[in-house]
Amino acid sequence: MRILGIDPGLQTTGFGVIDADGSALDYVASGTIQTTHLPRGDLPGRLKALFDGIAEVRRRYEPETAAVEIVFVNANPQSTLLLGQARGACVTSLVACGLAVSEYTALQMKRAVAGHGRAGKPEVQQMVMRLLRLPGLPGPDAADALGLAITHAHAGQALSRLAAATPLAARNTGRYRAGRGL
Amino acid sequence: MRILGIDPGLQTTGFGVIDADGSALDYVASGTIQTTHLPRGDLPGRLKALFDGIAEVRRRYEPETAAVEIVFVNANPQSTLLLGQARGACVTSLVACGLAVSEYTALQMKRAVAGHGRAGKPEVQQMVMRLLRLPGLPGPDAADALGLAITHAHAGQALSRLAAATPLAARNTGRYRAGRGL
Repeated sequence: MRILGIDPGLQTTGFGVIDADGSALDYVASGTIQTTHLPRGDLPGRLKALFDGIAEVRRRYEPETAAVEIVFVNANPQSTLLLGQARGACVTSLVACGLAVSEYTALQMKRAVAGHGRAGKPEVQQMVMRLLRLPGLPGPDAADALGLAITHAHAGQALSRLAAATPLAARNTGRYRAGRGL
Repeated sequence: MRILGIDPGLQTTGFGVIDADGSALDYVASGTIQTTHLPRGDLPGRLKALFDGIAEVRRRYEPETAAVEIVFVNANPQSTLLLGQARGACVTSLVACGLAVSEYTALQMKRAVAGHGRAGKPEVQQMVMRLLRLPGLPGPDAADALGLAITHAHAGQALSRLAAATPLAARNTGRYRAGRGL
């Protein structure tokens, strides 16, 4: 399963692509989409740059699913509004062509990657480097995006384990069959 | 010039299409894109519905330019974040295929349509009905969207008048030519 992680931001959006096969994770690619070369006032142009940048990542790496960070309200309401619009552009770029989008909070990502929710950016970068056996530290935005992809891979494993424990799978054992009266 | 006006909202996005030829305005179409049939928690699905809905309006009426309302922060920061994402989905649906997007505040729209910024929804609906010679009141969201298209038409007229008064145009008159030492 190839997973694309996205850490949305109006100035810088991080992306990270990994291959997950059971518990085995392999790095594919990561980087950032920048809009800082565009005039600050040209919001439609900056949203288009995010949309097009993610579409390009999608075309190049052909992920099968995507994981996007759930953003939170900022102390500055105007920043909240801008971040919301950036995230809207990122998510539509994924769903516009039918890619499934799962959503995770930064807290969930930190727990999945570092084992606790208080991890700072450097710890997330370190743990992502270790988990994916990278030769060097990824940038903070790319690390967050790779962390989201890893979070989704872990969630997928947990779901598989859950599916394996359902009555449907349990029917193959006589004990369960008898116990459920089938 | 065919203008598409968009009043973005996560539950209901209004759209309105008009043809503007100088000061003559003609109604083409209007309506709303709804996402209320989708689960509230399925934000990616609701953003896709907005993106696809606007893409459909674009294909059907082939506007040459678009005018989108500048949204403002809400008392509830979570609502601000959701509205921002809805607007991001709407704007990217327009710019993704190269349509130019102009942005106007609700205040600018009310001034253009009703002549003052304190106009309520019913007054905007009444004035839009009169300006476009509609047989009945448009709904409030469609009226706002038509109002934005009218605002853009007025802004275009103002720009044309400005262009007609520039030195380039003025060169055709001997008085200006002499005055500017050309």
